[in-house]
Amino acid sequence: MELKEKAFKSVSRKSHPEDTVIDIGGVKVGGDNFTIIAGPCSVESEEQIIGIAESVKKSGAVMLRGGAFKPRSSPYAFQGLKALGMDYLMEAKRITGLPIVTEIMNILHLSLFDGVDIIQVGARNMQNFELLKELGKTDKPILLKRGLANTVQELLMSAEYIMSEGNTKVILCERGIRTFEGVTRNTLDLSCIPIIKQATHLPVIVDPSHATGIAGLVAPMSYAAMAAGADGLIIEVHNDPPNALCDGDQSILPEEFDVVTRKIKKMASLFDKRV
Amino acid sequence: MELKEKAFKSVSRKSHPEDTVIDIGGVKVGGDNFTIIAGPCSVESEEQIIGIAESVKKSGAVMLRGGAFKPRSSPYAFQGLKALGMDYLMEAKRITGLPIVTEIMNILHLSLFDGVDIIQVGARNMQNFELLKELGKTDKPILLKRGLANTVQELLMSAEYIMSEGNTKVILCERGIRTFEGVTRNTLDLSCIPIIKQATHLPVIVDPSHATGIAGLVAPMSYAAMAAGADGLIIEVHNDPPNALCDGDQSILPEEFDVVTRKIKKMASLFDKRV
Amino acid sequence: MELKEKAFKSVSRKSHPEDTVIDIGGVKVGGDNFTIIAGPCSVESEEQIIGIAESVKKSGAVMLRGGAFKPRSSPYAFQGLKALGMDYLMEAKRITGLPIVTEIMNILHLSLFDGVDIIQVGARNMQNFELLKELGKTDKPILLKRGLANTVQELLMSAEYIMSEGNTKVILCERGIRTFEGVTRNTLDLSCIPIIKQATHLPVIVDPSHATGIAGLVAPMSYAAMAAGADGLIIEVHNDPPNALCDGDQSILPEEFDVVTRKIKKMASLFDKRV
Amino acid sequence: MELKEKAFKSVSRKSHPEDTVIDIGGVKVGGDNFTIIAGPCSVESEEQIIGIAESVKKSGAVMLRGGAFKPRSSPYAFQGLKALGMDYLMEAKRITGLPIVTEIMNILHLSLFDGVDIIQVGARNMQNFELLKELGKTDKPILLKRGLANTVQELLMSAEYIMSEGNTKVILCERGIRTFEGVTRNTLDLSCIPIIKQATHLPVIVDPSHATGIAGLVAPMSYAAMAAGADGLIIEVHNDPPNALCDGDQSILPEEFDVVTRKIKKMASLFDKRV
Repeated sequence: MELKEKAFKSVSRKSHPEDTVIDIGGVKVGGDNFTIIAGPCSVESEEQIIGIAESVKKSGAVMLRGGAFKPRSSPYAFQGLKALGMDYLMEAKRITGLPIVTEIMNILHLSLFDGVDIIQVGARNMQNFELLKELGKTDKPILLKRGLANTVQELLMSAEYIMSEGNTKVILCERGIRTFEGVTRNTLDLSCIPIIKQATHLPVIVDPSHATGIAGLVAPMSYAAMAAGADGLIIEVHNDPPNALCDGDQSILPEEFDVVTRKIKKMASLFDKRV
Repeated sequence: MELKEKAFKSVSRKSHPEDTVIDIGGVKVGGDNFTIIAGPCSVESEEQIIGIAESVKKSGAVMLRGGAFKPRSSPYAFQGLKALGMDYLMEAKRITGLPIVTEIMNILHLSLFDGVDIIQVGARNMQNFELLKELGKTDKPILLKRGLANTVQELLMSAEYIMSEGNTKVILCERGIRTFEGVTRNTLDLSCIPIIKQATHLPVIVDPSHATGIAGLVAPMSYAAMAAGADGLIIEVHNDPPNALCDGDQSILPEEFDVVTRKIKKMASLFDKRV
Repeated sequence: MELKEKAFKSVSRKSHPEDTVIDIGGVKVGGDNFTIIAGPCSVESEEQIIGIAESVKKSGAVMLRGGAFKPRSSPYAFQGLKALGMDYLMEAKRITGLPIVTEIMNILHLSLFDGVDIIQVGARNMQNFELLKELGKTDKPILLKRGLANTVQELLMSAEYIMSEGNTKVILCERGIRTFEGVTRNTLDLSCIPIIKQATHLPVIVDPSHATGIAGLVAPMSYAAMAAGADGLIIEVHNDPPNALCDGDQSILPEEFDVVTRKIKKMASLFDKRV
Repeated sequence: MELKEKAFKSVSRKSHPEDTVIDIGGVKVGGDNFTIIAGPCSVESEEQIIGIAESVKKSGAVMLRGGAFKPRSSPYAFQGLKALGMDYLMEAKRITGLPIVTEIMNILHLSLFDGVDIIQVGARNMQNFELLKELGKTDKPILLKRGLANTVQELLMSAEYIMSEGNTKVILCERGIRTFEGVTRNTLDLSCIPIIKQATHLPVIVDPSHATGIAGLVAPMSYAAMAAGADGLIIEVHNDPPNALCDGDQSILPEEFDVVTRKIKKMASLFDKRV
């Protein structure tokens, strides 16, 4: 079953044959760049986020991730530090210089995202079309994560929602889909990477942490993502995974992250990428 | 794999052994009531919605559905008549007396829903937790549709989001899940009905139209839903399916709907339900 | 996505507009007959199979199921009584007069199936094409179960394998498909029933026991199967489910089975079926 | 959900901590070897299979694949050249020296497999337990492909069926699973590779051709498979894909295969593998 490419106008590579490269304060995403984003699942304290930011920066991360607003299945689970978490992220940015990627769940929070460099739309909101349209009216780069049960066609249509409102800075992210296999949290669909790269000029990165839910799989799936042609990675790193407030099972330690980035750098020339 | 019932407090039948019955201007949902909701996928004109409302009422529908705000995969597809569609729905309600069920996609539209009797949360927004929390602060009955790739556990957790804010009037809706089988639009999961009825006191209805995407399957799946223990149906009925602006393939004609309601009425006593 | 009906010649209703009715020693499957088959997952002893046969017969079962050869995921799990189990089944048949349905796993066992009335092909062998072809050369009725990940198209193609060799007595069986939802063992796909009935003249029955894996769901899913248009049921009944050697969780007691058959008989006239 | 490792005795790495290395006439599978198997979907003629064998050998393939017995969804589709195809495979082996991998569908054909070096069990027969047990009594290496809807747990249990009969030479193969995503033929589950490598001492290879169904994805998925930690590849190569009797869409040309093997060789040292 082929993609219906006519359905996505601005997103289609036919409308824009060259790779889109998004420049975020000097950090580039797309083209021959391979961009490594890292950080904890959620911002837990000022010390935590700054400490992790400094260590992932040393290992080669060029952007910091961290959730201040957290979508959780249960209303009784930790929902993030919210505005305070945003303050801590800004402080980490000020100290390390790393641009910030963090998730928005409600367009009414947009004013809090002024200092954010890439606004993330999470998997559960991939078809929250009202949110997509509003983000399409901003000039912020958007990291659009594939929904758990969404096809590549639908992912590209959601990117089209953003672009149709004028915002051309969209980064796609594969983070695993829901299947019958329960040994991993989701099933990472790496074959979507070359499909997406052929269909669109937009960059596409991979989140091996959410895709697998298992810390021990982050390294091999990171290498596989680069080998499949991805434009970057977004990886959960935590200084104390067993005590993380969220997703500790899938977080790797800073020293494990360092191993990953070293190997990614060695692989890069083989895959015509700059890390 | 059993449900983790401890995770949902207000939703659990343990916290509230008796069936919740929601009264909407005399129309009851839950308990021994079997509630039939019908109407077009989207409101297309005043004549259309009123005409369909009158005919489904004659056949036994006790509530009118119709979309004014439509979530569509493509930004270029018909997005609904929006505020104008709401006006037409109100006019249909005034004329027929049928309470109205219609979907909200953005909490900022809430003021437009004053005259609406049940606010629907669509499958794509089942885990739009921000929307759920805001709806939990209203006193409107909420029709919460199961997401395409969401488990029963997650559906109940999303209901818990609404109830945890104080709104106890939640109606659940099974509308098909995404599987490998493509001959139907989705796979209707009727075995979830007795699972849900055992786990929670909330009513649960079935949408055979979206579940199958095929008009010819609406009748048998409606009967199967009642036999499985559902508390009602929400069915797409259109006077001219081939020219419907949305979902024509799955819409049945008023005369076909009449056949369905006649048989449902015959079945009712066998299943201890009042239609 | 529509069925490719050209692909199945003998199976297609176009080639044979009238319902196929298979007569098994006076017991009829297909057409306006609703056939209830019951018995334990596996034959455990002569007393067990005869005892269950007598009680399900009293409640209205017209055929006896019971596994002598059992396909198990583990080589170390109970694999059935094999030839001895076949002897016990024959004895149960002699005493009760009930025709026997039992599964074949290896064509080399065929000589043991002389007294068997319907040979079952299990879900895991639905695309064991060599087995299908050999069974197509016999004149025994075949109960072909849908594979866990097989489409309706593929089920019909597997029936075509049997019919293409000359055997026209094929009964199809929906028994649940594999999806992301783990609260039930599989997801019962009842919407396939009207799809199959329209595409082929062959009878189709439902196995609510394997489909759900939960005894408490057998009754509602049995009623839903009849309401969806199925031609019969195959239900696991055990006199002592907690001590069953296989699939105890999904087996119902004889007295529960009696409740099911009583209600099915009440439903029958509404669905133009004879039980 | 973790693997239940107690269920597989011989297969478990706990019972055999070192990697199993299978030696096939000097060609090694497992351990630090990366084994590339290539050839057409089906043997079509003597010239075809010899021609492809010679060209894939030049590019670095160390084993030849080719189907003589073909499992096809339709009984009317090309079913392979059968015994004649086996003769042609033997001739290709004699000329090129490449060991042969080919699929068995019926244990009664076993005598035809004397000259075959690895007997393949196809995805549709992964739970044909009778076949597995018989193959367990031979001393031929077995290539066991994961079923379309089978979990890693079940794959390992099926390997246990073979090993429990005494045959320790089992090679596992990931070849894509069935999901809702239809843009690829199946969804390649590369995250299963490190899961399997951790759980068992058996080698595991990847089939990017069947996994994706798209020739253009074979190269990137081959690289990703090595990066994920696989022990080898099995790739469909055809001299004239548009006219292939089977699976032309997913077959690559000999010159495309050469590009793949060159890059795999460059990657090898990074992943501690010998090609």
